[in-house]
Amino acid sequence: MTFEEKTMKTERIYEGRIINVRVDTVELPNKKYSKREIVEHPGAVGIIPITEDNKIILVKQFRKAVEEVLLEIPAGKIEPGENLVRCAVRELEEETGFTTDHVEKLIEFYTAPGFSNEKLHIYVAKNLKEGISNPDEDENIEIIELSMDEILNKIETGEIKDSKTIVAMLTYTNLYSKNR
Amino acid sequence: MTFEEKTMKTERIYEGRIINVRVDTVELPNKKYSKREIVEHPGAVGIIPITEDNKIILVKQFRKAVEEVLLEIPAGKIEPGENLVRCAVRELEEETGFTTDHVEKLIEFYTAPGFSNEKLHIYVAKNLKEGISNPDEDENIEIIELSMDEILNKIETGEIKDSKTIVAMLTYTNLYSKNR
Repeated sequence: MTFEEKTMKTERIYEGRIINVRVDTVELPNKKYSKREIVEHPGAVGIIPITEDNKIILVKQFRKAVEEVLLEIPAGKIEPGENLVRCAVRELEEETGFTTDHVEKLIEFYTAPGFSNEKLHIYVAKNLKEGISNPDEDENIEIIELSMDEILNKIETGEIKDSKTIVAMLTYTNLYSKNR
Repeated sequence: MTFEEKTMKTERIYEGRIINVRVDTVELPNKKYSKREIVEHPGAVGIIPITEDNKIILVKQFRKAVEEVLLEIPAGKIEPGENLVRCAVRELEEETGFTTDHVEKLIEFYTAPGFSNEKLHIYVAKNLKEGISNPDEDENIEIIELSMDEILNKIETGEIKDSKTIVAMLTYTNLYSKNR
Protein backbone atom coordinates (compact mmCIF):
# COMPACT_ATOMS: atom_id res chain seq x y z
CA MET A 1 0.00 0.00 0.00
CA THR A 2 1.25 3.50 -0.77
CA PHE A 3 0.86 5.84 2.14
CA GLU A 4 2.85 8.89 1.24
CA GLU A 5 1.27 12.33 1.14
CA LYS A 6 2.94 14.71 -1.28
CA THR A 7 3.16 18.35 -0.23
CA MET A 8 1.50 20.52 -2.89
CA LYS A 9 1.52 23.80 -0.96
CA THR A 10 2.78 25.06 2.41
CA GLU A 11 1.23 27.97 4.27
CA ARG A 12 3.37 29.37 7.09
CA ILE A 13 0.99 30.40 9.89
CA TYR A 14 3.21 31.30 12.85
CA GLU A 15 6.89 31.46 13.76
CA GLY A 16 7.26 31.46 17.53
CA ARG A 17 9.81 31.10 20.28
CA ILE A 18 9.30 27.36 20.79
CA ILE A 19 6.89 26.26 18.05
CA ASN A 20 6.13 27.13 14.44
CA VAL A 21 2.84 26.32 12.77
CA ARG A 22 2.20 25.53 9.12
CA VAL A 23 -0.62 24.08 7.04
CA ASP A 24 0.36 21.71 4.25
CA THR A 25 -1.94 20.94 1.35
CA VAL A 26 -1.20 17.32 0.50
CA GLU A 27 -2.02 14.97 -2.33
CA LEU A 28 -3.32 11.68 -0.92
CA PRO A 29 -2.54 8.30 -2.53
CA ASN A 30 -6.02 8.45 -4.15
CA LYS A 31 -4.98 11.80 -5.77
CA LYS A 32 -7.45 13.80 -3.69
CA TYR A 33 -6.21 16.82 -1.75
CA SER A 34 -6.37 17.35 2.00
CA LYS A 35 -4.91 19.77 4.58
CA ARG A 36 -2.52 18.90 7.40
CA GLU A 37 -2.04 21.28 10.32
CA ILE A 38 1.47 20.85 11.65
CA VAL A 39 3.21 22.16 14.76
CA GLU A 40 6.98 22.26 14.28
CA HIS A 41 9.02 21.72 17.43
CA PRO A 42 12.84 21.47 17.74
CA GLY A 43 12.61 18.30 19.85
CA ALA A 44 13.38 17.82 23.50
CA VAL A 45 15.36 15.74 25.94
CA GLY A 46 14.05 14.16 29.14
CA ILE A 47 16.24 12.77 31.90
CA ILE A 48 15.62 10.10 34.56
CA PRO A 49 18.01 11.20 37.33
CA ILE A 50 18.70 8.31 39.71
CA THR A 51 20.33 8.99 43.09
CA GLU A 52 22.71 6.66 44.92
CA ASP A 53 19.87 5.29 47.05
CA ASN A 54 17.74 4.62 43.97
CA LYS A 55 15.40 7.56 44.21
CA ILE A 56 14.25 9.40 41.10
CA ILE A 57 14.37 13.20 40.98
CA LEU A 58 11.21 14.72 39.54
CA VAL A 59 10.24 18.34 38.98
CA LYS A 60 6.91 19.97 39.73
CA GLN A 61 5.94 22.90 37.54
CA PHE A 62 2.93 24.82 36.32
CA ARG A 63 2.03 24.07 32.70
CA LYS A 64 0.04 26.93 31.24
CA ALA A 65 -1.29 24.83 28.32
CA VAL A 66 -3.21 22.58 30.74
CA GLU A 67 -3.52 25.08 33.65
CA GLU A 68 -2.15 22.51 36.09
CA VAL A 69 0.93 21.81 38.17
CA LEU A 70 2.46 18.63 36.75
CA LEU A 71 4.98 16.17 38.14
CA GLU A 72 7.52 15.33 35.41
CA ILE A 73 11.03 14.13 34.79
CA PRO A 74 13.42 17.05 34.13
CA ALA A 75 13.30 17.98 30.45
CA GLY A 76 13.83 20.77 28.02
CA LYS A 77 14.00 21.63 24.39
CA ILE A 78 17.09 21.14 22.26
CA GLU A 79 18.91 24.36 21.38
CA PRO A 80 19.92 24.90 17.73
CA GLY A 81 22.88 22.68 16.90
CA GLU A 82 23.03 21.27 20.41
CA ASN A 83 24.22 17.72 20.97
CA LEU A 84 21.59 15.52 22.68
CA VAL A 85 23.82 14.34 25.53
CA ARG A 86 24.97 17.89 26.21
CA CYS A 87 21.33 19.00 26.24
CA ALA A 88 20.41 16.28 28.75
CA VAL A 89 23.27 17.21 31.09
CA ARG A 90 22.44 20.93 30.77
CA GLU A 91 18.72 20.57 31.46
CA LEU A 92 19.38 18.29 34.42
CA GLU A 93 21.69 20.87 35.95
CA GLU A 94 19.48 23.87 35.16
CA GLU A 95 16.31 22.33 36.58
CA THR A 96 17.63 20.29 39.52
CA GLY A 97 21.16 21.50 40.24
CA PHE A 98 22.51 17.97 39.91
CA THR A 99 25.43 17.37 37.58
CA THR A 100 26.53 14.11 36.06
CA ASP A 101 29.39 12.78 33.98
CA HIS A 102 27.41 9.89 32.59
CA VAL A 103 24.06 9.58 30.81
CA GLU A 104 22.69 6.66 28.86
CA LYS A 105 20.05 6.74 26.12
CA LEU A 106 16.87 4.85 27.00
CA ILE A 107 14.29 5.49 24.27
CA GLU A 108 13.05 8.08 21.79
CA PHE A 109 9.51 8.70 20.55
CA TYR A 110 7.09 11.22 19.07
CA THR A 111 4.81 12.88 21.62
CA ALA A 112 1.92 13.79 19.30
CA PRO A 113 2.65 12.69 15.71
CA GLY A 114 -0.94 13.41 14.63
CA PHE A 115 -0.13 17.12 14.56
CA SER A 116 3.46 17.71 15.71
CA ASN A 117 6.97 16.56 14.82
CA GLU A 118 8.20 16.89 18.41
CA LYS A 119 10.60 14.04 19.20
CA LEU A 120 11.53 13.24 22.79
CA HIS A 121 14.88 11.64 23.65
CA ILE A 122 15.04 10.02 27.09
CA TYR A 123 18.30 9.55 28.99
CA VAL A 124 19.12 7.91 32.32
CA ALA A 125 21.55 9.84 34.54
CA LYS A 126 23.47 8.26 37.42
CA ASN A 127 26.53 9.29 39.51
CA LEU A 128 24.81 12.55 40.37
CA LYS A 129 26.64 15.35 42.14
CA GLU A 130 24.68 18.02 43.98
CA GLY A 131 24.98 21.59 42.79
CA ILE A 132 22.89 24.71 42.44
CA SER A 133 19.89 24.77 40.11
CA ASN A 134 19.55 27.56 37.58
CA PRO A 135 16.18 27.35 35.85
CA ASP A 136 15.19 29.59 32.97
CA GLU A 137 13.92 32.98 34.09
CA ASP A 138 10.30 31.99 33.40
CA GLU A 139 10.47 28.53 35.00
CA ASN A 140 9.24 27.92 38.54
CA ILE A 141 10.34 24.49 39.58
CA GLU A 142 10.11 22.44 42.75
CA ILE A 143 12.23 19.29 43.09
CA ILE A 144 10.90 16.03 44.55
CA GLU A 145 12.63 12.68 45.15
CA LEU A 146 10.49 9.56 44.88
CA SER A 147 11.10 5.82 44.81
CA MET A 148 10.32 3.85 41.68
CA ASP A 149 7.32 2.24 43.42
CA GLU A 150 5.94 5.61 44.45
CA ILE A 151 6.19 6.79 40.86
CA LEU A 152 4.51 3.69 39.43
CA ASN A 153 1.76 4.17 41.97
CA LYS A 154 1.30 7.82 40.91
CA ILE A 155 1.06 6.74 37.27
CA GLU A 156 -1.65 4.24 38.19
CA THR A 157 -3.65 6.73 40.27
CA GLY A 158 -3.38 9.35 37.54
CA GLU A 159 -1.34 11.82 39.61
CA ILE A 160 1.46 11.62 37.05
CA LYS A 161 -0.13 12.49 33.71
CA ASP A 162 2.67 13.63 31.43
CA SER A 163 3.32 11.26 28.52
CA LYS A 164 7.13 11.61 28.46
CA THR A 165 7.33 10.85 32.19
CA ILE A 166 5.05 7.82 31.86
CA VAL A 167 6.92 6.48 28.80
CA ALA A 168 10.30 7.06 30.47
CA MET A 169 9.44 5.45 33.79
CA LEU A 170 7.52 2.47 32.38
CA THR A 171 10.24 1.77 29.81
CA TYR A 172 12.91 1.99 32.48
CA THR A 173 10.98 -0.33 34.83
CA ASN A 174 10.34 -2.80 32.05
CA LEU A 175 13.96 -3.03 30.98
CA TYR A 176 15.20 -2.99 34.55
CA SER A 177 12.95 -5.87 35.62
CA LYS A 178 14.00 -7.87 32.54
CA ASN A 179 17.70 -7.49 33.30
CA ARG A 180 17.47 -8.64 36.89
CA MET B 1 5.40 27.68 46.48
CA THR B 2 3.02 29.53 44.17
CA PHE B 3 3.16 28.29 40.64
CA GLU B 4 0.20 29.83 38.92
CA GLU B 5 0.61 31.98 35.83
CA LYS B 6 -2.12 34.59 35.42
CA THR B 7 -3.24 35.32 31.86
CA MET B 8 -2.81 39.04 31.16
CA LYS B 9 -3.52 38.94 27.42
CA THR B 10 -4.49 36.33 24.82
CA GLU B 11 -3.62 36.59 21.16
CA ARG B 12 -5.54 34.22 18.88
CA ILE B 13 -3.15 33.09 16.13
CA TYR B 14 -4.98 30.36 14.22
CA GLU B 15 -8.31 28.54 14.23
CA GLY B 16 -7.99 25.27 12.35
CA ARG B 17 -9.79 22.04 11.65
CA ILE B 18 -8.06 20.05 14.41
CA ILE B 19 -5.97 22.57 16.33
CA ASN B 20 -6.15 26.21 17.38
CA VAL B 21 -3.11 28.24 18.36
CA ARG B 22 -2.92 31.11 20.80
CA VAL B 23 -0.20 33.06 22.61
CA ASP B 24 -0.89 34.00 26.23
CA THR B 25 1.00 36.77 27.98
CA VAL B 26 1.27 35.57 31.57
CA GLU B 27 2.27 37.11 34.87
CA LEU B 28 4.73 34.81 36.63
CA PRO B 29 4.77 34.35 40.43
CA ASN B 30 7.69 36.85 40.54
CA LYS B 31 5.42 39.42 38.81
CA LYS B 32 7.47 39.37 35.60
CA TYR B 33 5.73 38.76 32.29
CA SER B 34 6.37 35.93 29.84
CA LYS B 35 4.70 34.44 26.75
CA ARG B 36 3.22 30.95 26.40
CA GLU B 37 2.56 29.47 22.97
CA ILE B 38 -0.36 27.08 23.27
CA VAL B 39 -1.84 24.56 20.84
CA GLU B 40 -5.47 23.85 21.67
CA HIS B 41 -6.68 20.35 20.82
CA PRO B 42 -10.11 18.80 21.53
CA GLY B 43 -8.55 15.66 23.03
CA ALA B 44 -8.48 12.15 21.65
CA VAL B 45 -9.27 8.56 22.46
CA GLY B 46 -6.99 5.58 21.86
CA ILE B 47 -8.13 1.95 21.96
CA ILE B 48 -6.26 -1.30 22.69
CA PRO B 49 -8.35 -3.83 20.74
CA ILE B 50 -7.70 -7.36 22.02
CA THR B 51 -8.84 -10.36 19.97
CA GLU B 52 -10.02 -13.69 21.37
CA ASP B 53 -6.58 -15.23 20.86
CA ASN B 54 -4.92 -12.31 22.70
CA LYS B 55 -3.59 -10.43 19.68
CA ILE B 56 -3.62 -6.64 19.60
CA ILE B 57 -4.92 -4.85 16.51
CA LEU B 58 -2.69 -1.97 15.45
CA VAL B 59 -2.97 0.46 12.55
CA LYS B 60 -0.25 1.61 10.23
CA GLN B 61 -0.62 5.08 8.75
CA PHE B 62 1.40 7.89 7.27
CA ARG B 63 1.84 10.85 9.62
CA LYS B 64 2.56 13.99 7.66
CA ALA B 65 3.93 15.87 10.69
CA VAL B 66 6.83 13.41 10.96
CA GLU B 67 6.88 12.23 7.31
CA GLU B 68 6.82 8.59 8.42
CA VAL B 69 4.52 5.59 8.44
CA LEU B 70 3.81 4.84 12.11
CA LEU B 71 2.45 1.79 13.88
CA GLU B 72 -0.15 2.88 16.45
CA ILE B 73 -3.17 1.78 18.39
CA PRO B 74 -6.42 2.93 16.74
CA ALA B 75 -7.23 6.47 17.87
CA GLY B 76 -9.02 9.61 16.90
CA LYS B 77 -10.07 12.99 18.14
CA ILE B 78 -13.18 13.58 20.19
CA GLU B 79 -16.04 15.24 18.29
CA PRO B 80 -17.79 18.21 19.91
CA GLY B 81 -20.04 16.97 22.71
CA GLU B 82 -19.12 13.35 22.10
CA ASN B 83 -19.05 10.88 24.95
CA LEU B 84 -15.61 9.25 25.44
CA VAL B 85 -16.83 5.65 25.32
CA ARG B 86 -18.88 6.36 22.20
CA CYS B 87 -15.80 7.96 20.62
CA ALA B 88 -13.66 4.90 21.43
CA VAL B 89 -16.21 2.51 19.91
CA ARG B 90 -16.64 4.73 16.84
CA GLU B 91 -12.93 5.15 16.13
CA LEU B 92 -12.32 1.42 16.58
CA GLU B 93 -15.02 0.63 14.04
CA GLU B 94 -14.01 3.33 11.55
CA GLU B 95 -10.32 2.42 11.55
CA THR B 96 -10.40 -1.37 11.95
CA GLY B 97 -13.95 -2.48 11.15
CA PHE B 98 -14.19 -4.25 14.52
CA THR B 99 -17.16 -3.48 16.73
CA THR B 100 -17.43 -4.06 20.46
CA ASP B 101 -20.07 -3.81 23.17
CA HIS B 102 -17.57 -3.37 25.96
CA VAL B 103 -14.65 -1.00 26.55
CA GLU B 104 -12.81 -0.30 29.79
CA LYS B 105 -10.86 2.83 30.70
CA LEU B 106 -7.14 2.20 31.25
CA ILE B 107 -5.41 5.58 31.68
CA GLU B 108 -5.48 9.20 30.61
CA PHE B 109 -2.58 11.62 30.12
CA TYR B 110 -1.35 14.76 28.36
CA THR B 111 0.72 14.09 25.24
CA ALA B 112 2.74 17.33 25.19
CA PRO B 113 1.76 19.58 28.11
CA GLY B 114 4.71 21.91 27.46
CA PHE B 115 2.81 23.44 24.56
CA SER B 116 -0.54 21.65 24.08
CA ASN B 117 -3.62 20.77 26.13
CA GLU B 118 -4.25 17.57 24.18
CA LYS B 119 -5.48 14.86 26.55
CA LEU B 120 -5.48 11.21 25.51
CA HIS B 121 -7.95 8.73 26.98
CA ILE B 122 -7.00 5.07 26.57
CA TYR B 123 -9.57 2.27 26.54
CA VAL B 124 -9.25 -1.51 26.30
CA ALA B 125 -11.73 -3.22 23.95
CA LYS B 126 -12.55 -6.95 24.09
CA ASN B 127 -15.35 -9.14 22.67
CA LEU B 128 -14.61 -7.83 19.21
CA LYS B 129 -16.87 -8.58 16.25
CA GLU B 130 -15.50 -8.30 12.75
CA GLY B 131 -17.09 -5.76 10.42
CA ILE B 132 -16.17 -3.40 7.64
CA SER B 133 -13.80 -0.50 8.28
CA ASN B 134 -14.78 2.97 7.23
CA PRO B 135 -11.85 5.36 7.70
CA ASP B 136 -12.12 9.11 7.17
CA GLU B 137 -11.80 10.14 3.55
CA ASP B 138 -8.22 11.36 4.09
CA GLU B 139 -7.02 8.38 6.17
CA ASN B 140 -5.06 5.52 4.61
CA ILE B 141 -4.87 2.74 7.12
CA GLU B 142 -3.47 -0.77 7.14
CA ILE B 143 -4.41 -3.14 9.96
CA ILE B 144 -1.92 -5.44 11.69
CA GLU B 145 -2.39 -8.02 14.46
CA LEU B 146 0.52 -8.56 16.83
CA SER B 147 1.08 -10.40 20.08
CA MET B 148 1.88 -8.46 23.23
CA ASP B 149 5.48 -9.75 23.13
CA GLU B 150 5.90 -8.62 19.52
CA ILE B 151 4.67 -5.16 20.48
CA LEU B 152 6.96 -4.88 23.52
CA ASN B 153 9.83 -5.93 21.29
CA LYS B 154 8.95 -3.24 18.74
CA ILE B 155 8.86 -0.61 21.51
CA GLU B 156 12.32 -1.70 22.63
CA THR B 157 13.80 -1.67 19.11
CA GLY B 158 12.25 1.73 18.41
CA GLU B 159 9.96 0.50 15.63
CA ILE B 160 6.95 1.70 17.63
CA LYS B 161 7.58 5.35 18.37
CA ASP B 162 4.22 6.93 19.10
CA SER B 163 3.81 8.05 22.72
CA LYS B 164 0.14 7.10 23.14
CA THR B 165 0.84 3.57 21.84
CA ILE B 166 3.84 3.16 24.15
CA VAL B 167 1.97 4.51 27.19
CA ALA B 168 -1.08 2.35 26.42
CA MET B 169 0.81 -0.88 25.87
CA LEU B 170 3.27 -0.50 28.76
CA THR B 171 0.50 0.49 31.17
CA TYR B 172 -1.59 -2.46 30.06
CA THR B 173 1.34 -4.89 30.40
CA ASN B 174 2.22 -3.50 33.80
CA LEU B 175 -1.29 -3.86 35.19
CA TYR B 176 -1.82 -7.19 33.48
CA SER B 177 1.37 -8.70 34.92
CA LYS B 178 0.43 -7.39 38.38
CA ASN B 179 -2.98 -9.05 38.29
CA ARG B 180 -1.73 -12.48 37.31
